[in-house]
Amino acid sequence: MICSKKNLARLVRGAMGEIPADVILRGGKLVNVYSGEILDGMEIAVIDERICYVGPSAEHARGAQTEVVEVNGRYLAPGFIDGHTHVGHYARPFENLQSFIACGTTALVASCDEAASVFGYRGLQFFLDEVAAHPLRVYTLVSMTAPQDPLLCSTATFSDEEIAAALTDPRVLGMGEIVSWLRLLQCDAEILRRIELANANGQLIHGHTAGARDRKLCAVAATGISSCHEPIQLEDAIERLRLGYWTMLREGSLRQDLEATLRPLLDTGVNLSRLILVTDSMTPDDVAERGHMDNVVRRAIECGLSPLRAIQSVTLRPATYSGIAQDVGGIAPGRFADIVLIDDLERCHVERVMVGGKWVADKGVSQVKNEPISVPPEFLNGLSVGAKVSPETFKIKCQTANPKIRVMELVNQTITAERIVEVAAPAAHVEANLYDDLLKVAMFDRHRSVGAAFGFLKGLGIKVGAVATTVNLDENSLLVVGANDQDMARCANVLLDCGGGVAIVEGGQVLERLDLPAGGIFSLHRWQQVAKRLARAQQVLREQGSPFDKPLFALSFLPFVTLPALRITARGLVNAKERKIVSLIVE
Amino acid sequence: MICSKKNLARLVRGAMGEIPADVILRGGKLVNVYSGEILDGMEIAVIDERICYVGPSAEHARGAQTEVVEVNGRYLAPGFIDGHTHVGHYARPFENLQSFIACGTTALVASCDEAASVFGYRGLQFFLDEVAAHPLRVYTLVSMTAPQDPLLCSTATFSDEEIAAALTDPRVLGMGEIVSWLRLLQCDAEILRRIELANANGQLIHGHTAGARDRKLCAVAATGISSCHEPIQLEDAIERLRLGYWTMLREGSLRQDLEATLRPLLDTGVNLSRLILVTDSMTPDDVAERGHMDNVVRRAIECGLSPLRAIQSVTLRPATYSGIAQDVGGIAPGRFADIVLIDDLERCHVERVMVGGKWVADKGVSQVKNEPISVPPEFLNGLSVGAKVSPETFKIKCQTANPKIRVMELVNQTITAERIVEVAAPAAHVEANLYDDLLKVAMFDRHRSVGAAFGFLKGLGIKVGAVATTVNLDENSLLVVGANDQDMARCANVLLDCGGGVAIVEGGQVLERLDLPAGGIFSLHRWQQVAKRLARAQQVLREQGSPFDKPLFALSFLPFVTLPALRITARGLVNAKERKIVSLIVE
Repeated sequence: MICSKKNLARLVRGAMGEIPADVILRGGKLVNVYSGEILDGMEIAVIDERICYVGPSAEHARGAQTEVVEVNGRYLAPGFIDGHTHVGHYARPFENLQSFIACGTTALVASCDEAASVFGYRGLQFFLDEVAAHPLRVYTLVSMTAPQDPLLCSTATFSDEEIAAALTDPRVLGMGEIVSWLRLLQCDAEILRRIELANANGQLIHGHTAGARDRKLCAVAATGISSCHEPIQLEDAIERLRLGYWTMLREGSLRQDLEATLRPLLDTGVNLSRLILVTDSMTPDDVAERGHMDNVVRRAIECGLSPLRAIQSVTLRPATYSGIAQDVGGIAPGRFADIVLIDDLERCHVERVMVGGKWVADKGVSQVKNEPISVPPEFLNGLSVGAKVSPETFKIKCQTANPKIRVMELVNQTITAERIVEVAAPAAHVEANLYDDLLKVAMFDRHRSVGAAFGFLKGLGIKVGAVATTVNLDENSLLVVGANDQDMARCANVLLDCGGGVAIVEGGQVLERLDLPAGGIFSLHRWQQVAKRLARAQQVLREQGSPFDKPLFALSFLPFVTLPALRITARGLVNAKERKIVSLIVE
Repeated sequence: MICSKKNLARLVRGAMGEIPADVILRGGKLVNVYSGEILDGMEIAVIDERICYVGPSAEHARGAQTEVVEVNGRYLAPGFIDGHTHVGHYARPFENLQSFIACGTTALVASCDEAASVFGYRGLQFFLDEVAAHPLRVYTLVSMTAPQDPLLCSTATFSDEEIAAALTDPRVLGMGEIVSWLRLLQCDAEILRRIELANANGQLIHGHTAGARDRKLCAVAATGISSCHEPIQLEDAIERLRLGYWTMLREGSLRQDLEATLRPLLDTGVNLSRLILVTDSMTPDDVAERGHMDNVVRRAIECGLSPLRAIQSVTLRPATYSGIAQDVGGIAPGRFADIVLIDDLERCHVERVMVGGKWVADKGVSQVKNEPISVPPEFLNGLSVGAKVSPETFKIKCQTANPKIRVMELVNQTITAERIVEVAAPAAHVEANLYDDLLKVAMFDRHRSVGAAFGFLKGLGIKVGAVATTVNLDENSLLVVGANDQDMARCANVLLDCGGGVAIVEGGQVLERLDLPAGGIFSLHRWQQVAKRLARAQQVLREQGSPFDKPLFALSFLPFVTLPALRITARGLVNAKERKIVSLIVE
């Protein structure tokens, strides 16, 4: 991203009109995120990917070959930046970028969590190369999910040497996200070592302080962790702003928090100079339906933010936080010519998108050639759990006829409560009970040949034999939930055969499947196809009785050991608050 | 400035109350620069130099040895940061810091220009060590004044290797300031090389774009130069803000720009999120009279900024621009405990100052022990111009009886116009003419044994035999201005004998002198003594007829080749706009 002397000289000469610009944009209303104004009559000249001139007339920079674009009163905004997100699930990263770019998103900051949790350091390297093949600028955070918690999680790992090496890659911005702040509060040596390293490198660390307050929130900030995207209510947002966090409000696939956070925040009148709006992830079906950062801007405007301030929250502010504001985040000399043409500002309707002076999307369609890099063959069809899976695999023995078991009860789509439930086990086995909405859960370890860990889930509400997914946080291993062992085995074997994905089975029949052969985390198909199948899978689960909008997400979060309260990983059932493995059957 | 793992753990444990805090501040009104609020009832706990807790009660962090300070309703603000300044003239850097710290200034960003221009790389090293000996945090910019313009200036120089080595010093923040933007517009290879290097290191470069507009201002910004402190009118400030510059408004010794820039800027309603207030330098006499950053805050409030926004402009914003906001610029966990206790917010009256959890100033007096490092002996009494100076030295021969000469006419204290004046030279020499306020100027080269360069100055207005100073930008060499050759020689020899400084001579008698034996740029005495002598020297020149408030500054800027219009360096008279040496006598 660094300009050579030669390029610097060309920018200077371009600004002065001594050499012709590549592109001139004129006749637009400039959304100036620096001064907070919308300015008529400003012209923009671009040379070698970057803006060299912004001012009343770029006529001096016009040459015979200059592409002069009259934008006829449309708005010219800086390309949108998703300041904290994840792009490795369902569609491959390149395809996810294809989906985002037509929505005006021209840069994003992403953890490489998915590939890292499955493939370790090779996964990070693949991720860096994959996203580099697309013009959307990806600033990568080295994953801390490898693993978030070695006591509880079974994922691929990074050594300290690998972390150190990764942080020297110029495409890497820092480290993210430290989900297990409980480890940090316990002064876990590995976490402290890595924080020290990132701090010493002057690199930022994204936080994730869901549920932390007062002294816990202070303790995390005290180590230099500088952002959090987990406020879900007004008080969360205000407390983080006051404590100096760059405070990110989220409007994405997994959560839509703006209504509960941004709207009341505006009434308080607190300073928003450290407020950033992010998606935290968008799945292909949601991008198809709602959009990406354009949707975030739209929602922010609906919540009462002015269009200009909404755009500042997804351009200059994330760029400033990320230390990349000399490259992106505004329309000014020296910045990349990443520009969004908007025809309706209130509705944030994106008409065309430019990255580095080249048009990359038009009327909602990416113009970027579909040429991703090859996925390494060893990444494909490699899901294994070390043993053949059969209905027997799912049998849970018990010693007593009326055992008490720990049940994960979904209190909403992501949070569980722990319930102790007495069940009948007449045949010395604990079984699912569809009538009571009590489903069996089996979580397999893809990295070690050990048996499945078992649990029970209440509240998912589906009336099918089994559903399985290898998309889950942060294990990304085989998770099967079901009502009977035959369907669970069938479901598991469908995914083991294709390398992973999502499958729904009822009475031995596959109702729906989405193959994700690359590590069980992403498809090799176009994002639009992935979007359709994913939407259908969610729909089938809703039709089969789930009360949730996105029932698959409830499953994906079951292994996420830093959310309340009872979770399941390949190691067993997890008491998240106490950071320990607990038994299924309560003695 | 990086916390070790051990320190990180102590901060975490301090926040959680597992180990006792060193200091707790309570009962104050917290000036929260992040949220833009003034908050009652917030308590602050400090451990190992840094803040570990900010919240409703720090009682959990209190131990038997904890110093609990009741501040009884006073305001607690983050330590003030001077985002762009110079600290190497008149008093030694350590003493200047002593003068600033009692005014609430706890950090600053400074070029090492003065020491660099005289001593080159050794000067930079001395500067870094000198300021490190004082608790006020100095973030150093490697000087570009070595030299600003090799065509025109005669200063010590840095090689590319020295620049590269300097930029790796952890105490160095970047490069500054690029005064000669004309060189940049001409794509000077040395400048581009250095910009490329700083950009590649991710280090910032302070600009100085006095007088640049439109395409010239764009050209400078296009190279990554990210700030400017030279707006002197509303239009300058707005244009820089719009072009993405971090825009610094100045209220210091050399200029006081807030009245002309900040006041009208507030009426426009433009976004001030990239507005910073700086001094650009304060001399000891002015600090004694007006204060330092407290004065800047006071003046900003008088110009209509709210106290909170004024404080944001000298804390969080300069910290954010400088990339040091995880260390300084706000009162939040993880930041250094650099805190200013203010008893009257509107008047910004600073009562006590804390740096790194230790009280460093009380009621306007520094509590820091006066223990600067030793000045290297070779830095002392080393002013030489290569030859003995006598009245003969100042004779300017000419061939004709009525030559036309180029005259520097002061249109104000810093700007000159070029006037062509016909003078009488009956004895084949051009002489000063006190009646016409036409003074002779001689500028000597301290680095090479060449003769003096000569010029004439109109508008200084003094009726003395001679005044000389070795404090001038950026030559810091012997500059003598006078009405007769005898007094000029006496004046020069006074300074050559003591290593440099300021001297005023009339009729062979020294009216006033300020010895600056260290390179001719700073005294070894306490700043208060320097302040008195400097104030007296200025006063004598005013009493002798100068219309300017600070007549010495007019002399100090005569060699500053990037200000309009006619200047003088040891190389000769300089046409600043055309970047060339011109003759005194017009043929």
